[in-house]
Amino acid sequence: MKKIRLGIVGLGSHGTGHTRNILNGMCPELEITAVCDIDPDRLAVHKETFGEFPAFVNYSDMIDSGLIDAILIVTPHYFHPPIAIEAMRKGIHVMCEKPAGVYTKQVKEMNAVAAECNVSFGMMFNQRTNPTYIKTRELVQSGEFGEMRRVSWIITNWYRPQAYYDSGAWRATWSGEGGGVLLNQCPHNLDLWQWICGMPSKVYTKMKFGKWHDIEVEDDVTTIVEYPNGATGTFVTTTGDWPGSNRLEITMDKAKIVVENNVIHLWELDVTEQEFTVSNKVPFCQPKFTYSQVEAPGVETAHCGVMNAWAGNILRGEPLVAQGEEGINGLSISNAMHMSAWTGKEVELPIDDEVYYQMLMERVKTSRRKENVTTVISDLSNTYNTGSDNK
Amino acid sequence: MKKIRLGIVGLGSHGTGHTRNILNGMCPELEITAVCDIDPDRLAVHKETFGEFPAFVNYSDMIDSGLIDAILIVTPHYFHPPIAIEAMRKGIHVMCEKPAGVYTKQVKEMNAVAAECNVSFGMMFNQRTNPTYIKTRELVQSGEFGEMRRVSWIITNWYRPQAYYDSGAWRATWSGEGGGVLLNQCPHNLDLWQWICGMPSKVYTKMKFGKWHDIEVEDDVTTIVEYPNGATGTFVTTTGDWPGSNRLEITMDKAKIVVENNVIHLWELDVTEQEFTVSNKVPFCQPKFTYSQVEAPGVETAHCGVMNAWAGNILRGEPLVAQGEEGINGLSISNAMHMSAWTGKEVELPIDDEVYYQMLMERVKTSRRKENVTTVISDLSNTYNTGSDNK
Repeated sequence: MKKIRLGIVGLGSHGTGHTRNILNGMCPELEITAVCDIDPDRLAVHKETFGEFPAFVNYSDMIDSGLIDAILIVTPHYFHPPIAIEAMRKGIHVMCEKPAGVYTKQVKEMNAVAAECNVSFGMMFNQRTNPTYIKTRELVQSGEFGEMRRVSWIITNWYRPQAYYDSGAWRATWSGEGGGVLLNQCPHNLDLWQWICGMPSKVYTKMKFGKWHDIEVEDDVTTIVEYPNGATGTFVTTTGDWPGSNRLEITMDKAKIVVENNVIHLWELDVTEQEFTVSNKVPFCQPKFTYSQVEAPGVETAHCGVMNAWAGNILRGEPLVAQGEEGINGLSISNAMHMSAWTGKEVELPIDDEVYYQMLMERVKTSRRKENVTTVISDLSNTYNTGSDNK
Repeated sequence: MKKIRLGIVGLGSHGTGHTRNILNGMCPELEITAVCDIDPDRLAVHKETFGEFPAFVNYSDMIDSGLIDAILIVTPHYFHPPIAIEAMRKGIHVMCEKPAGVYTKQVKEMNAVAAECNVSFGMMFNQRTNPTYIKTRELVQSGEFGEMRRVSWIITNWYRPQAYYDSGAWRATWSGEGGGVLLNQCPHNLDLWQWICGMPSKVYTKMKFGKWHDIEVEDDVTTIVEYPNGATGTFVTTTGDWPGSNRLEITMDKAKIVVENNVIHLWELDVTEQEFTVSNKVPFCQPKFTYSQVEAPGVETAHCGVMNAWAGNILRGEPLVAQGEEGINGLSISNAMHMSAWTGKEVELPIDDEVYYQMLMERVKTSRRKENVTTVISDLSNTYNTGSDNK
């Protein structure tokens, strides 16, 4: 079997997890041939844990080493686009951890380079491999139930204690992450949301900064959106609630869908509400419907599924789980949420990238980087929040 | 047994329902001794259905007739305060259907008169007799679980077809109702919401007018609120979705509560989240909790329960289900939602009553009263939306 020579940049908790998966044989078409971290201590820990690999402290050196065909970018978010751009220009295939970047201006540049370079470019949206969400998307996008009318996602099961935020100097700072729960935990949900429901056209957000933690960025977000067809939605998230909820409700002309605890509940009307309301003559009367739970066959292949699809894309042109270029969608919603919260106004999408960049940079200027932080590498294997039942 | 002599003003669907309950012996301390409707046809229908009662077309005449000790006001909303005020000034006890009125300026006047007059003044918030909501309120207000952090109420099971709106010329017009789903269906929920969670201090609302129906008022409402303690919330309602949802989720420092299908789900933490986060040293770790379903004993006595408590209040000083003066709370939220939607801005409570009144009157001026409408009196006994399971 032909193996793709992979370099991993960023050996924190996620980079360590990916290393373990690959060394455990879960990605048979990928072989780690180089690793990179700006912090020599991390390289030392990696060597101690996993054995020796060609190691770099500078990602450009790894890209230019001739040792790798492909790069997995697992650095803090701000570095995703510049590393991806440099790699793509050198003909190196790119898999980028979420989010695509911190601000859309930067991600647009990355996408423009991707369009010019003949490389495979994927985003690590591992939750797109969850059969529940795949099936939900099919239901919504099939057209069978008419148009979407309303969506409410309460996604508050991203609890993080203060110790989490104290585990890395870059965490939850404007200069290190460029945001809080929206940039670190919610990129999955923002991506799934737009993947299932499409992109909203207007966003109003109430945001609280450091409400539940000693951090400068948002840890509590409440949003109202509007879609081009006039449908409306809410999105509520936080890292302060436990046990939180993960409940996605979508109303359509001919159905209601609720996704909770990895179960899809479907109420299907006999006719669309529009058809019913024009023919019915009784003041208190409702369309008939049937209730069912929808099967979502398959298993969630998660991070390895994304990596293996990427390998298949590189080797045989098979489809990616998520095109790299799609990373901008969820980030656009995230940026719009911040802009709305900062201005106190509803904002229209697409937002002005340059204005957003300036607003963010103002906050970066006075960002409070944490002192005396001991970096902790955590085992993340049980933290990926796939919608399990908290009962 | 001493019976209170009751006059009913407004013999539409609700007035008819109340008449039926009382004549069926469900309110043993109340005796209907007069009825009133501005429409002689309705009086004729009432007579034909229930037999002859002293009948009036002018409510002042009924109030002055000497035939009644108490009045049940079941007219279109605009008339609630003026009728209540006139009755109270004549020493007549008042039970007012929801909402208390259409705009807070008017309701403040009603409450001021109530404060001067020694009469019993109750609001028909029949859903306050639902043991599920009584128990939920106890849980939230007990202090046992700390402070409220977040509330989300999706209350979209108020479906009404076009035929409903076509069943009365006053329905769903600025001049006739002064609003749509917030003024007709949701007063119950707005009251329960503030009764359980307290009054919000800020409101932002996206509202759609005649989105699902041929009406001029709102039939689709999405709101974000903030409370004095910084807690946030969402409230989503419509008369366009079927089958809708009725799901109330409340997060507190030491618990999560979900009320759905008349079941109270409780997740109780061992310690408050605040206590956990300062003592815990592990980045990915959560407070322990236990899940249970909370029993809510008792039966929902509904409209008759409210009427019987009112009779007990008049005769023996027993507590009302809802003090008349409390009607202004839900209406204040409703008015704030309209003001926010009309201005596109977050508004602070209390709103400026006079400004709201002017904004409403502008809409009343050009209100499109419906022509050629045949008034229909409906049996409402199955329309009271007590949170039943739609599965």
